[in-house]
Amino acid sequence: MDEVLKELEHYLSKDIPYSRVLSSMCTNPHPIAVKAHCMFLRTNLGDPGLFPGTFELEKKVLSILGNFFGCESAVGYISTGGTESNIQAIRAARNVWKKSNRGNIIVPESAHFSFDKIGDLLGIEVRKAKLDEEYKADLSDVERLVDDETFAIVGIAGTTELGQVDDIKSLSKIALEKGIFLHVDAAFGGFVLPFIGKKDFDFRVKGVSSLAVDPHKMGLATIPAGVIMFREESYLSSLCVETPYLTSSRQYTLTGTRPGTGAASIYAVLKYLGFDGLKKVVLECMRITKMLKEEVEAIGLEPVIEPVTNVVCFKCKAFRLRELLLREGWFVSAINRPEAIRCVIMPHVTEDIALDFVSSLKKTLSFI
Amino acid sequence: MDEVLKELEHYLSKDIPYSRVLSSMCTNPHPIAVKAHCMFLRTNLGDPGLFPGTFELEKKVLSILGNFFGCESAVGYISTGGTESNIQAIRAARNVWKKSNRGNIIVPESAHFSFDKIGDLLGIEVRKAKLDEEYKADLSDVERLVDDETFAIVGIAGTTELGQVDDIKSLSKIALEKGIFLHVDAAFGGFVLPFIGKKDFDFRVKGVSSLAVDPHKMGLATIPAGVIMFREESYLSSLCVETPYLTSSRQYTLTGTRPGTGAASIYAVLKYLGFDGLKKVVLECMRITKMLKEEVEAIGLEPVIEPVTNVVCFKCKAFRLRELLLREGWFVSAINRPEAIRCVIMPHVTEDIALDFVSSLKKTLSFI
Repeated sequence: MDEVLKELEHYLSKDIPYSRVLSSMCTNPHPIAVKAHCMFLRTNLGDPGLFPGTFELEKKVLSILGNFFGCESAVGYISTGGTESNIQAIRAARNVWKKSNRGNIIVPESAHFSFDKIGDLLGIEVRKAKLDEEYKADLSDVERLVDDETFAIVGIAGTTELGQVDDIKSLSKIALEKGIFLHVDAAFGGFVLPFIGKKDFDFRVKGVSSLAVDPHKMGLATIPAGVIMFREESYLSSLCVETPYLTSSRQYTLTGTRPGTGAASIYAVLKYLGFDGLKKVVLECMRITKMLKEEVEAIGLEPVIEPVTNVVCFKCKAFRLRELLLREGWFVSAINRPEAIRCVIMPHVTEDIALDFVSSLKKTLSFI
Repeated sequence: MDEVLKELEHYLSKDIPYSRVLSSMCTNPHPIAVKAHCMFLRTNLGDPGLFPGTFELEKKVLSILGNFFGCESAVGYISTGGTESNIQAIRAARNVWKKSNRGNIIVPESAHFSFDKIGDLLGIEVRKAKLDEEYKADLSDVERLVDDETFAIVGIAGTTELGQVDDIKSLSKIALEKGIFLHVDAAFGGFVLPFIGKKDFDFRVKGVSSLAVDPHKMGLATIPAGVIMFREESYLSSLCVETPYLTSSRQYTLTGTRPGTGAASIYAVLKYLGFDGLKKVVLECMRITKMLKEEVEAIGLEPVIEPVTNVVCFKCKAFRLRELLLREGWFVSAINRPEAIRCVIMPHVTEDIALDFVSSLKKTLSFI
């Protein structure tokens, strides 16, 4: 057994330590999440009657999060992550609408690439609304794109590229006026925004029909741990298929067999750190984001927007710079519109790491 | 921290121990799989450039399994399980076919309920072929259902209800003649059939285009660990979307962020037990299946078919019997056509457990 584990260790050692990574929205899970995960490793929520304790835990997590995100009676489940949550939200919207198999949805240009998967998967048109000068969904363009075949509008709370937050209240107004489903993708922002005083992205906004948040991002849970929540039960029900031979008779999840590790690790973090503890983590990320922004401005790069969340992008010859930084062992992303390097200040990016990065960046810039 | 873990322990203690479960196709993972899983808990194969070691491991697993299932050059990835694997196979078949967004597929009536999800998700028609007297896909009915809009045929190697194996060779003949994609769902049978001398369900059969196998079922890996494999690269490519800000530029998986635990736990089992070790496990399950069948026949219940794999179903007033057995703490499934109780003899079902079950069954039958 030791020999096999040693071989696995060899593969693992080739992975990049997060201490050099500013390109990811994932991070090391909290130690309590790791412990909880290992405890629940044998569980299968795909067959809830065999795992009633774990299923109870999942329902408890959903209830805590429903409350936290402004809708006590929200229903949903723990998914594999943002992509599944987004798929299920749009699928449910289409199933309830069901005028035809096609239809269209409107997402901002800043939406995550999972919406391209969704377009392909469901065979629907994904219309992309322009962004305004702050890189939020352009509201008039959203309105312009809506037609009789539009069954959902999507707003992003914490865009993948800039960490920007769409004006969910205004999108809600459009959705309510036109009677259209509104999904909010808060996979990243869900565990950031409430801690920095921004609560107008969730079920508190009347027109929001569904919400995706990812505890395995800023919630410090283990992968896989996403959450999809619906304001109304009918949407979740519209996803059900019958499940003969299982202990339950219907299944609303996208996957069949699925681990209970997400339920356990989310619950462990929520109990151990609590929302207060998570807030401290987020505020420290925001402090370092601000510091990084100022340090990099001081060496001559301009941020694309003032950071709204713990993401900051700097205008530059990004694709060349990214390659040079990689040679120094740093991982950043390059974005296109506008060309910029992107830094996500996850909890693993400490002040020391950020300052170390700035000095590498300074050195590297002199080669461009 | 201890308090939180104690609370989690409380939930976990309400779950049913597998020693009373004959209704599931999951089991306790092998101890080496558990160790490997815990080692790789922080990895994210959704961003392979950050986890090159884990990604290498995934490719190695795919190569080993491609070889094992008769196609060295097969391409694919480690999925969340059979449902995702089936979704991706059918989606790929549709994408390459792409005559329209609709089209239809033909699955036997015995197909897993994930094909109902797929019909809903992709907005395609799922035509169900009748079963023959052995509960295999009726070949003439499959032929009858094929039309110009049929882009895939599905065969099952190890049906969920009876563990039956469709005649994949004949389905292959139909598929080749008509130029249609053939997907084989061997989620259950993939890690059973090769060990009991049945190899005519995989890529060795010429018309098989894709294959789903689930190491988290009879492969003793940890959940989530499914595998989808395609004979030709073009099908995998047809699933790709562009992924800006990640270390890779395209993504063919259904989910985005995804754990590397499946790669690690599958590899650990394959290295530690090897195919020889897995064969021993399967042969023991088959021995107990045969024993259980004989013991239950002796108390008067007739098996629906002679067990082909480690699943055995007995004709009876199954829905009533299932409830009565539940009162004794036993979990079995009830199936409909014909009405029967279903027992899956997973590795956790030892000879003692099986005999214990038979005596409960005997007692319970006297109440009906």
